[in-house]
Amino acid sequence: MADPKSPLPPDRFIERLRSAGEGRYHSHHPFHRRMNEGRLDEVSIRTWILNRFAYQRTIPLKDAAIMSNCPVVEVRRSWIHRIVDHDGVAGSAESPNGGIEAWLLLGEAAGIPRETMLDERNILPGVRFACDAYLNFCRQRPWIEAVASSLTELFAPDLMATRLAAFERYYPWVEARGLRYFKNRLAQAPRDSREAVEFVKRWCVTAEQQDRAVESLLFKCDLLWAMLDAIDRACTDRATPAGAA
Amino acid sequence: MADPKSPLPPDRFIERLRSAGEGRYHSHHPFHRRMNEGRLDEVSIRTWILNRFAYQRTIPLKDAAIMSNCPVVEVRRSWIHRIVDHDGVAGSAESPNGGIEAWLLLGEAAGIPRETMLDERNILPGVRFACDAYLNFCRQRPWIEAVASSLTELFAPDLMATRLAAFERYYPWVEARGLRYFKNRLAQAPRDSREAVEFVKRWCVTAEQQDRAVESLLFKCDLLWAMLDAIDRACTDRATPAGAA
Repeated sequence: MADPKSPLPPDRFIERLRSAGEGRYHSHHPFHRRMNEGRLDEVSIRTWILNRFAYQRTIPLKDAAIMSNCPVVEVRRSWIHRIVDHDGVAGSAESPNGGIEAWLLLGEAAGIPRETMLDERNILPGVRFACDAYLNFCRQRPWIEAVASSLTELFAPDLMATRLAAFERYYPWVEARGLRYFKNRLAQAPRDSREAVEFVKRWCVTAEQQDRAVESLLFKCDLLWAMLDAIDRACTDRATPAGAA
Repeated sequence: MADPKSPLPPDRFIERLRSAGEGRYHSHHPFHRRMNEGRLDEVSIRTWILNRFAYQRTIPLKDAAIMSNCPVVEVRRSWIHRIVDHDGVAGSAESPNGGIEAWLLLGEAAGIPRETMLDERNILPGVRFACDAYLNFCRQRPWIEAVASSLTELFAPDLMATRLAAFERYYPWVEARGLRYFKNRLAQAPRDSREAVEFVKRWCVTAEQQDRAVESLLFKCDLLWAMLDAIDRACTDRATPAGAA
């Protein structure tokens, strides 16, 4: 066995990240499996769209936290597009083009009024806690660990493509114009994960930094999983007081 | 006298902010007065340029912290340009056009090597603490208080115009191409303070919120003043161990 203190060469380190995260990505969660097999009812799909919106709203806040902790101007110049991707651009107030607005459109396409989507009281506590954990992680940990946690995007395109096909096939009651978010992420996620891979290659150069990057990615897998646990529970047990609209 | 619990009407509130901050703005500091009267020697000018750079580098970090704390997407869409203004745009690596790069040019124009500018060990402790205090304030306080603290920009254009004239007249040894930062801010600061004024008008609607906005602005005046105290001291007492290049 190699000296436990030796870092892996960059490409093997990325392979380690990939194999550590792949099996724990939330694509394997029973709720996602049922979603992609067309086995969710309308209330379950709506509960997922509504609660997952809490995560979407967290993204620009966590990306700004990463930037606030990052003294490397070149990294900030690159990372900032993620905030724009989700918040959209100022001056186009009539039709903001960011991911948050696209997710609101998904909600509308599934029959969830905009006010319901925007009312945080509709979010399940377990989902809220997972989103807050992510934001606090990005605020409190070294920026490169937060960057490593974003590498769940390595696995996102496959899930997104499967989901897109599942929505078109099994959930035609969700209007097609609502699927723009998924289509956008098909192109954005690979670009974003390539960027993050380059940063962790460059800044995780000791064995300890590489270990922390893997832990950060697994933390992120855990929180995505915990969100689905909370959503699944609420859909299975409709007596749960909050969230199931 | 008005009920102490009544908020001021928006325009009177802004007047209160303006009159509270104006007299404590660092344009009145003895060091700035001597600078603008042409009474600083080359070492003092260089010490100021070098140490003030620590503040310039803090700006995008504090603006990202404000965004990370701000749940209002419209505010974030507007605020983000401040980060771009200072960091510059990715893809133009040969000639990044942000404020940080412009300040590095100022350093070069004054004969300070880029490596010296970028070496944080050259920063006076009092300057570093003031910059850290600003960043921590923006990370820990409600975003609207951090926005209010940015309102020192209400007073910046006058100081900037005076300084620009002073550099051209009294410090011709600083090459003219180094003055781009000051020229850029002549246009940027009024736009930025207009934006921040609109936000504090809209979000500081109780007497208590208005009081906190005033306190935030005074805190910012104090930290700008403390930076100049540290710089002035180092220039007056050249035996000070750090910072006087």
